[in-house]
Amino acid sequence: MFPNVNKIKYAGPDSVDPMSYRYYNSSEVIMGKTMQEWCRFSICNWHTFRGKGADPFGFPTMTRVFDDESNSMENCKRRIDAMFEMLVKLDVPYYTFHDRDVSPEGKNLEESNKMLDEIVDYLEMKQKETGKKLLWATQNLFSHARYMNGGATNPDANVFAYACAQAKKVLEINHKLGGENVVFWGGREGYQSVLNTDVKREMDHMAAFFKMVVDYKAKIGSNAQLLIEPKPREPTKHQYDYDAQTVIGFLYTYGLQDHFKLNIEPNHTTLAGHDYEHDILVSSKFGMLGSVDCNSGDPLLGWDTDMFCTDIKKTTLVMKIIMESGGFATGGLNFDCKVRRESTEDRDLFIGHIGGIDNFARGLRNAAKIINDGVMDGMVKERYSTFDEGFGKTVEDGKATLESAAEYAASVGEPKQTSGRQEEYEMIFNRYV
Amino acid sequence: MFPNVNKIKYAGPDSVDPMSYRYYNSSEVIMGKTMQEWCRFSICNWHTFRGKGADPFGFPTMTRVFDDESNSMENCKRRIDAMFEMLVKLDVPYYTFHDRDVSPEGKNLEESNKMLDEIVDYLEMKQKETGKKLLWATQNLFSHARYMNGGATNPDANVFAYACAQAKKVLEINHKLGGENVVFWGGREGYQSVLNTDVKREMDHMAAFFKMVVDYKAKIGSNAQLLIEPKPREPTKHQYDYDAQTVIGFLYTYGLQDHFKLNIEPNHTTLAGHDYEHDILVSSKFGMLGSVDCNSGDPLLGWDTDMFCTDIKKTTLVMKIIMESGGFATGGLNFDCKVRRESTEDRDLFIGHIGGIDNFARGLRNAAKIINDGVMDGMVKERYSTFDEGFGKTVEDGKATLESAAEYAASVGEPKQTSGRQEEYEMIFNRYV
Amino acid sequence: MFPNVNKIKYAGPDSVDPMSYRYYNSSEVIMGKTMQEWCRFSICNWHTFRGKGADPFGFPTMTRVFDDESNSMENCKRRIDAMFEMLVKLDVPYYTFHDRDVSPEGKNLEESNKMLDEIVDYLEMKQKETGKKLLWATQNLFSHARYMNGGATNPDANVFAYACAQAKKVLEINHKLGGENVVFWGGREGYQSVLNTDVKREMDHMAAFFKMVVDYKAKIGSNAQLLIEPKPREPTKHQYDYDAQTVIGFLYTYGLQDHFKLNIEPNHTTLAGHDYEHDILVSSKFGMLGSVDCNSGDPLLGWDTDMFCTDIKKTTLVMKIIMESGGFATGGLNFDCKVRRESTEDRDLFIGHIGGIDNFARGLRNAAKIINDGVMDGMVKERYSTFDEGFGKTVEDGKATLESAAEYAASVGEPKQTSGRQEEYEMIFNRYV
Amino acid sequence: MFPNVNKIKYAGPDSVDPMSYRYYNSSEVIMGKTMQEWCRFSICNWHTFRGKGADPFGFPTMTRVFDDESNSMENCKRRIDAMFEMLVKLDVPYYTFHDRDVSPEGKNLEESNKMLDEIVDYLEMKQKETGKKLLWATQNLFSHARYMNGGATNPDANVFAYACAQAKKVLEINHKLGGENVVFWGGREGYQSVLNTDVKREMDHMAAFFKMVVDYKAKIGSNAQLLIEPKPREPTKHQYDYDAQTVIGFLYTYGLQDHFKLNIEPNHTTLAGHDYEHDILVSSKFGMLGSVDCNSGDPLLGWDTDMFCTDIKKTTLVMKIIMESGGFATGGLNFDCKVRRESTEDRDLFIGHIGGIDNFARGLRNAAKIINDGVMDGMVKERYSTFDEGFGKTVEDGKATLESAAEYAASVGEPKQTSGRQEEYEMIFNRYV
Repeated sequence: MFPNVNKIKYAGPDSVDPMSYRYYNSSEVIMGKTMQEWCRFSICNWHTFRGKGADPFGFPTMTRVFDDESNSMENCKRRIDAMFEMLVKLDVPYYTFHDRDVSPEGKNLEESNKMLDEIVDYLEMKQKETGKKLLWATQNLFSHARYMNGGATNPDANVFAYACAQAKKVLEINHKLGGENVVFWGGREGYQSVLNTDVKREMDHMAAFFKMVVDYKAKIGSNAQLLIEPKPREPTKHQYDYDAQTVIGFLYTYGLQDHFKLNIEPNHTTLAGHDYEHDILVSSKFGMLGSVDCNSGDPLLGWDTDMFCTDIKKTTLVMKIIMESGGFATGGLNFDCKVRRESTEDRDLFIGHIGGIDNFARGLRNAAKIINDGVMDGMVKERYSTFDEGFGKTVEDGKATLESAAEYAASVGEPKQTSGRQEEYEMIFNRYV
Repeated sequence: MFPNVNKIKYAGPDSVDPMSYRYYNSSEVIMGKTMQEWCRFSICNWHTFRGKGADPFGFPTMTRVFDDESNSMENCKRRIDAMFEMLVKLDVPYYTFHDRDVSPEGKNLEESNKMLDEIVDYLEMKQKETGKKLLWATQNLFSHARYMNGGATNPDANVFAYACAQAKKVLEINHKLGGENVVFWGGREGYQSVLNTDVKREMDHMAAFFKMVVDYKAKIGSNAQLLIEPKPREPTKHQYDYDAQTVIGFLYTYGLQDHFKLNIEPNHTTLAGHDYEHDILVSSKFGMLGSVDCNSGDPLLGWDTDMFCTDIKKTTLVMKIIMESGGFATGGLNFDCKVRRESTEDRDLFIGHIGGIDNFARGLRNAAKIINDGVMDGMVKERYSTFDEGFGKTVEDGKATLESAAEYAASVGEPKQTSGRQEEYEMIFNRYV
Repeated sequence: MFPNVNKIKYAGPDSVDPMSYRYYNSSEVIMGKTMQEWCRFSICNWHTFRGKGADPFGFPTMTRVFDDESNSMENCKRRIDAMFEMLVKLDVPYYTFHDRDVSPEGKNLEESNKMLDEIVDYLEMKQKETGKKLLWATQNLFSHARYMNGGATNPDANVFAYACAQAKKVLEINHKLGGENVVFWGGREGYQSVLNTDVKREMDHMAAFFKMVVDYKAKIGSNAQLLIEPKPREPTKHQYDYDAQTVIGFLYTYGLQDHFKLNIEPNHTTLAGHDYEHDILVSSKFGMLGSVDCNSGDPLLGWDTDMFCTDIKKTTLVMKIIMESGGFATGGLNFDCKVRRESTEDRDLFIGHIGGIDNFARGLRNAAKIINDGVMDGMVKERYSTFDEGFGKTVEDGKATLESAAEYAASVGEPKQTSGRQEEYEMIFNRYV
Repeated sequence: MFPNVNKIKYAGPDSVDPMSYRYYNSSEVIMGKTMQEWCRFSICNWHTFRGKGADPFGFPTMTRVFDDESNSMENCKRRIDAMFEMLVKLDVPYYTFHDRDVSPEGKNLEESNKMLDEIVDYLEMKQKETGKKLLWATQNLFSHARYMNGGATNPDANVFAYACAQAKKVLEINHKLGGENVVFWGGREGYQSVLNTDVKREMDHMAAFFKMVVDYKAKIGSNAQLLIEPKPREPTKHQYDYDAQTVIGFLYTYGLQDHFKLNIEPNHTTLAGHDYEHDILVSSKFGMLGSVDCNSGDPLLGWDTDMFCTDIKKTTLVMKIIMESGGFATGGLNFDCKVRRESTEDRDLFIGHIGGIDNFARGLRNAAKIINDGVMDGMVKERYSTFDEGFGKTVEDGKATLESAAEYAASVGEPKQTSGRQEEYEMIFNRYV
């Protein structure tokens, strides 16, 4: 499929040849794990093998030798062949897909499922052949016109039922393929206008849907991790899964917190007004980080650009959080990224992924050095040291009261001022990248 | 104090005299309550009686006859006199304050508290004299240099203790003055940089602080409603109480959900990327709406402008939500608003409040008409009617499964398309305003 | 085409029937012109007759009885029939189109032009039949894959030439159809990355293109007004025609200021960070306002939503600016608006336009009242009255110097403070809407 | 003044000591100039020696040994001493100031000017003593209450005159001190509301003011470069000098284009919705780049944060643009930056500047390598090569017409698709940083 793309190898110290890794070496061991084990990279089927460069103002720009644009089974399989070829050539262990991007929508559910079964058999065969694995599958409940008013939050119970049927099937095929997670991104689960929307009823329905998913997963004996992927808006004006903390709150409100973790996409995080690493950090600290869609947005653009991340400071921060949590359990770094619509050659597809992989590999190397040095972490630990003993410790132990605090405050008088030293932290951090 | 401001009365049908109500009449009954009972307006002490027009690029612009800029007790009391005079002249029943805007910071906690006690006695006397009431008090844990790195989330346990001491005192004085709520706005409870911050430890400390507050409130026998006020950022880069759903999630995560409700400020809501009414709506639907700081921001500006709301469609939506929930329990509409720094006359203070009150009064009248007509609500109810019976009802009753749903979906085939009719809802809504 | 849409009439004072005008009456005279003359409404071909509800995350949702989705000439003509039927039924005098939405792209330029000629003949016939007129035509230099890197700013001179050929043809057909303007919206005239872009060379090419347009317009004897439509971004990351003042600056820089005016789309204005009316106001005051694409965005969304405007305060401000400039010369209010993709019925198309028309009609009525009353304008005039005489007048007459100013300043001492009274202006304005 | 800050020297390869340069060496020659000649760093008086950490929600946090908070002449001189001490210790050649931050506002203009004269004498003496130079001076027409409604755009001619008097004095003292530029930042030259504003009249007054400045500069024989500094908003809702292209357009509209260049502050650029380097790039390409206020904002925050730039990719891009234009003529890199209000120690002041200097020094080194290698520039040049000959050249030579273009387009047929290769450019660029 990619005849001109043979060897992805770093070509020497001064070269700028972009068709090679400069920083990534899958088997190199860093702090007790191989780079592959830390990163668990994954390539997505939709952007990379189905994306053709259309945007709201323009038609597709890309043609691929492996895609005749038909919905035939052969064409589906040829695209899958291309995907596995790329996984092998790029030394990437995982892939991800939606039900409707690996296999077409039929004239009814039965036909759609039948075609999907054929494709799943083919995927299983390719997995065996190559040793590549499924990071996660997901159901597309947002592209078909039927879902224009939502899937699990559709005002029409008939559409809700259809969404359930698709989710059921994905739980089954993901289980068959050994997928380590199942992802729920609710692209249309939100509102366009509060005027025509019963927000409470829709959120109750969404919770009902998730409970049904939990039950069915148990019934079929799957132990895939369920993941919700937050996004604040687009395509809807407001999506109920706004950001990590909103989703965590939703899960607690409906008693679902033990059954789901989060799949964080940093492009969604910045759209929600947070820094790139924020939702990854918060999810991680509250034990809710499942997996990462490791793309990047442009903070000055108000829509999802799904770019490969090119900011080494951000990849360093993300890898540091992941390393500090001991690494991914079932998740990975999934390239939910697309090349620009002007990048029309197959070569651009490879370069995009090589760049993305290398940038996270650089981040991993930087993070390891920061953690090993211990300078920055030591500074942070020292900053909170008053909570390690005395009155501060009683707070952390749950023994302090407003009265004990007020007495303590009166006894110590005005606290000594302590600089936050942000510029110093930034400078030290910058010297690692 | 305001010699030129005597009578706030609507001056006739064609007049544009701004020193009069055109839409508000406190004693007029609408749908079973007086306008005053629905609105429960409140004037805040800080913006209206302490604000002087300084901004990050400019010095104060306003001088007030009732303020000699000193920290003397007489000056504090004179400002309080002006506030009560305005409450009377504008026919507003409630006021709000921070500890440090009614009374100065002393050279230590003891002195600060002593001065505050004297002021509280004065406020109590003024309340009796005028019949005006305290909607809520709050502690300022963000203005003093001591709190630059936070109050309840400060890395220094000594500052944490100081914050506790202030919160303890506010619980006491609010109880004494019969304040119906106590508000917690954590202006510095967040981070400027993740590099120097232990986010998890800070959030744990914040939860510990809130638990101490709950306990002490019980101990002193106060039944004031505790309220958290969300804001996404400013002054910090990221505030932990980002928006309504984030705070609800935080409360559930730490088991505090039965003890706190929310004080929603729409200017904060739009800064978080949501529509004006969003946080009010969500809080209301989940039983967490306590009170409203009824100001407005400018969606094209990235900071808190605290303007009086001039958008009748927004006041209509807000009043409709409040009416549908049966009205406020302990909360109200508090004008956390400031006149522009170029609006330097006393007259501007009055006009700002009259405009704000009138705009919510117009909203109330519109909302009552929409509810009484029932056209829009009937359209929404109809939109979700498939969940009132059959399969849809099994979903709401918690009896549906993915399997029953898939069977049902197969039996009904492709759902019939139903237009969302947003333009129609908008047009009908627009004809009410 | 629209069998269920017969009569667009206002149905009485208490009705909320959305299929009728409540505020618009084309022949009613207001301040010396009919409402039709003030508004000069126009319906666009692309959104209303070609839009099918696709978005970046979803397939089309709409099917139309007048569109079999083919590129046949009969289908093109049937869509045109539907457009003229709507113009008649809604009492709208103008329409607008792109070359490639009225007529398909052929296998080469010659074929495309031949088909376009046939369609133009058909449009001419329909114009005669109905009396409807062409407000403007424009060339689509952004949808075809060929234009992915720009039209007039494409790095490839061959694409530049292609863009010229399309523009030449549009000048000709617009002239033939009596189009009163020709619009240039440069959707891809900008950059995605500065790394691969020679910004200066691209802007020089764009200016060269516009000069060629000016020359050819003169050569064919057209007196259509040339209009540039600003937009800050989307689809590109940065569009050279960022906003009104940027375009005006560009025109002056390249000596083109006498040949172009602006077509302002408020949705683009808010995306550029300005208030809805800002670019209309600035263009009007500098004699550069040509026409208006009277849609609306959502200030909290970062992309073009092209909604019908529902904000009466904004339509009032816009109509006031237009009335104060004496009304449009060649331009009009063109509904570059689309119904939401969930609004899938033909009825929604009508309601969208009726709502849009009515909202501007309300704005027109409000603006007329504000102008007639003269209260607000009088307040503004008074505010600047120190420039009507004395030192201020020497400034406006160009006779003041820094020295005369410094002398004058020393002589008058500290200026008296004057309140800006923004809240009063807002309240008075609000009482008109 | 800074007893603990003696030697700013890089402390060795593995150290993270932040009190040292790692990348900057003022006398090292790179591509024909010393690093100091390329960078021309400057420290500003206002943030660094007058800033005390106040923000809209908090009181000052910083105390300085060199500042007793008084307005005495001794205190002013002591702050100046501290500034020159820092210039020497940090090996920085330039400084900048506002009239009212080096010297206090008196009770009238005469007194203010008298005090300013005394301070200017002191500055002159310090310049001679240290060899340090003035990059630019500017007048503060935004902080005093008198300017709340603007300086040159104030509706009151008396305030306009006062602004002129201040500008006149600054032209004089800047001339006396050998300042190489005079900057005009119009913080209040804009509007808060269009309702009370005559936008056209205000812009005419602003142009009149600038013409008076041009005339007076000529009269006193100054050859300082006049610079306008764009900013989109804050403190006003809309500032007339929105961004670089808006200002360039304004200058052309009023015939002022030969007399002014721009002082670009990237924090303002990002607030206007552009990438960090955009306004620097555009100004440079149109021959209008005068100087740079080399700070940085946070693209997720809607206000001016004036941080030291920590993004090496951005400093690389900026230095590349500056190097390609041959370096600054009269301008430089002025640190219009402030340490965070939580960074309260003197040490933080030094670290902030050292980090800023080092980050631009890294950018300079990277840019030199990119330019020397020629890989990226070669790729860009090749991308536009069709304009170097044939039809493309006739476009650049102004000889092409729409007709010649259409003929050419017909002759070549569908242009060959050319990938934009953005990912490749990004990857190559990333390997340089």
